[in-house]
Amino acid sequence: MTNYLESNKERFLDELLALLRIPSVSADSKFKDDVRRAAEFVKEKLAAAGLDKASLYETPGHPVVYAEKIVDPNKPTVLVYGHYDVQPADPYELWHTPPFEPTIRNERIYARGACDDKGQFYMHIKAIETMMATDGLPCNVKVMIEGEEEVGSDHLGTFVAEHRDMLKADVILISDTSIISNETPSLEIGLRGLSYVEVEVTGANRDLHSGVYGGAVANPINVLAKMIASLHDDNGHITIPGFYDNVVELNDDERAELAKAPFSLEEYKQDLAINDVAGETGYSTNERTSIRPTLDANGIWGGYTGEGAKTVLPSKAFAKISMRLVPNQTPDEITTLFTKHFTSIAPAGVTVKVTPHHGGLPYVTPVDSVEFEAASKAFEDAWGKKPIPTRGGGSIPIVALFEQELGVKSILMGFGLDSDALHSPNESYGLFNFYKGIETIPYFYKNYAQLKR
Amino acid sequence: MTNYLESNKERFLDELLALLRIPSVSADSKFKDDVRRAAEFVKEKLAAAGLDKASLYETPGHPVVYAEKIVDPNKPTVLVYGHYDVQPADPYELWHTPPFEPTIRNERIYARGACDDKGQFYMHIKAIETMMATDGLPCNVKVMIEGEEEVGSDHLGTFVAEHRDMLKADVILISDTSIISNETPSLEIGLRGLSYVEVEVTGANRDLHSGVYGGAVANPINVLAKMIASLHDDNGHITIPGFYDNVVELNDDERAELAKAPFSLEEYKQDLAINDVAGETGYSTNERTSIRPTLDANGIWGGYTGEGAKTVLPSKAFAKISMRLVPNQTPDEITTLFTKHFTSIAPAGVTVKVTPHHGGLPYVTPVDSVEFEAASKAFEDAWGKKPIPTRGGGSIPIVALFEQELGVKSILMGFGLDSDALHSPNESYGLFNFYKGIETIPYFYKNYAQLKR
Repeated sequence: MTNYLESNKERFLDELLALLRIPSVSADSKFKDDVRRAAEFVKEKLAAAGLDKASLYETPGHPVVYAEKIVDPNKPTVLVYGHYDVQPADPYELWHTPPFEPTIRNERIYARGACDDKGQFYMHIKAIETMMATDGLPCNVKVMIEGEEEVGSDHLGTFVAEHRDMLKADVILISDTSIISNETPSLEIGLRGLSYVEVEVTGANRDLHSGVYGGAVANPINVLAKMIASLHDDNGHITIPGFYDNVVELNDDERAELAKAPFSLEEYKQDLAINDVAGETGYSTNERTSIRPTLDANGIWGGYTGEGAKTVLPSKAFAKISMRLVPNQTPDEITTLFTKHFTSIAPAGVTVKVTPHHGGLPYVTPVDSVEFEAASKAFEDAWGKKPIPTRGGGSIPIVALFEQELGVKSILMGFGLDSDALHSPNESYGLFNFYKGIETIPYFYKNYAQLKR
Repeated sequence: MTNYLESNKERFLDELLALLRIPSVSADSKFKDDVRRAAEFVKEKLAAAGLDKASLYETPGHPVVYAEKIVDPNKPTVLVYGHYDVQPADPYELWHTPPFEPTIRNERIYARGACDDKGQFYMHIKAIETMMATDGLPCNVKVMIEGEEEVGSDHLGTFVAEHRDMLKADVILISDTSIISNETPSLEIGLRGLSYVEVEVTGANRDLHSGVYGGAVANPINVLAKMIASLHDDNGHITIPGFYDNVVELNDDERAELAKAPFSLEEYKQDLAINDVAGETGYSTNERTSIRPTLDANGIWGGYTGEGAKTVLPSKAFAKISMRLVPNQTPDEITTLFTKHFTSIAPAGVTVKVTPHHGGLPYVTPVDSVEFEAASKAFEDAWGKKPIPTRGGGSIPIVALFEQELGVKSILMGFGLDSDALHSPNESYGLFNFYKGIETIPYFYKNYAQLKR
């Protein structure tokens, strides 16, 4: 197995680089054809790896790629999930090398999607190829790679519901999360949920001259700023009535357990070049990004944003606002609370519109399951270290959906690093992580086949 | 005179439309050549009208156009000022017809600059042509049309200082303001000053994944929103320490005098399609836009503003903020106070940069001068009505500068309407106003020549 991996290293990397060259940005319709090209690429590689039934399944949005290999109906079945779509790459000017021209620098692959999620799901295809080319598959495997994760997986729910039998499995294996460091492997046992909305504040029916009307007419930008500012109090608590009602508070033991993860506030601040962290009073940085819900404006725009000065009172101002959720908040509940509150605080002189974008439920993996044990042991086998259980701050909405629709738990066996700059310019993925992932994954199949007997 | 105007109506309009077709946007460098084309056009028309020395004067920015006609050194001299540059036209999609393809609809000219200021300064060139072609000029005339008014006239101060003798005059005549309505002519006796800054809030050294870092790191958009929101209190007062220290408060008589201008709050709200006005407690709508200083965000941007959803914590957020000033505030004083305050309220986790754009002093015209009398009488002669003295909300920074550099007062003889949508999509100028202006201006020269004797 190690030999096969060794002797095919170069090809594995070249294939990933080819995939990274396809700008499969699902959020922006002008990349629609590229997204499909990426799907076709994945389909071909799944077939080439030796999997059966490799095909595209159309959805109202971007297609789902699926393939499987049933070696023995009596063996457990692993369903691999990943996504071939990527985040928008802008602002392009901040990239040191073009986002869709992958470059290797200091042992890292720089490209949009290098880690999230192309580099990570592609490890599975290569791990499966390796197993099949050597000792064979210890479990049946099904692979489902979607193209709408970065825009909320709007159509995957229906797809899963309509293909329950095809997707039937004992565990779902996902590599779309991070480890603490290459020295300290970890396994994510929790994910935050997500509620994402777009807000629009409208004042007058047209842009106005700020000299002629300034001071007498509500300015949508000033109003939007005031409304967004009012969503947090001075302690960093979110002021939306009922927002925290269903939040599961951790007890001191649970918090102590999480606090065991090695963390240096100094290094953290240094890496981000900030003089201080900021967040909810009474919680540590790690808690703020994992067990606590948040509210952030992800984008804001209005008025004149060009070169020079324009003295205008715009008719409209906009913002994209997302909330990260924790057990037991639900996106529907939170989106409703937000909409109700945000509309209610609109002052006289403006009208407010809230448009929900997409959401996802928070999720927690049980650490006492054979699935978790198989994953934990896989790290021990490949890394010689027991991975530390962590709670992640990100969201993979689909994980909660899998549990609802398929009644199957997911294992979040990610190999990325927080410093990989996901969703940012100069996203990268370590060559070490890419190859180590391909080496670790087969151990999971081996362990799972034994433990599940 | 009337006959000449009558028989040349069509040509006068065609010439203006040709000028309006030139996109002379001074704020955006990509229009640099068009701005020069507009200057050349104005120069030619000044020469064609019969003026001498028509020429362009280079500046570090856009050129100044100048021409003159000295009929008799013993006669008073009128210096006409205007600007051939226009505001940016975006958002283009909101224009019913393209901004630089002037269209006549219901007796109005629709185009960027139709009123501000191409339509208004061009009336002077045609009025001068008319006087010279008929009874002759009652006064000497000098015409200075600049190309940087919409970006703060940064280089006109130096130009004026360097050409004091050439620009020597008894009065400056400017048409770049509005009348109350076509039934109720008015003369502006006051202008607000301006302080315009751009602010930049920087958090982390790169865009971050809002799931991985959300809740633990200051979000520049949330911070900027909070900072902008904090600049007004609940009464609409500006919270910058010292902001109001030099504001000249009007006494009850002065306020009563201004309150005489006809105004319908219902029509005002209806025209803007707002359910209510908003502004500083204790002042009327007219006072809020004339005798009171204001602070407005004219533009804001940061994070992801494209299609769909992106869960990013941006590294930076920006805003353009302008303050309208009243006697005796000065832009230097206010810009300094703003910068000091805005920087001081930056919370931990971010850095703030403030870049001043440009400013202008407020201005008041004395109503007991022969200059004002000549203008007031000109309206009576042409409109059969005495114009109502008003205080305008806009800013023409150069007016205060003229007084400093040339020791000459300016007469703000504007013919526009607030509903002309200056600085907005679908800016327009009434044909009635264009022609009535050309008819009214010669009366000013006639009256002034007599009164000044």
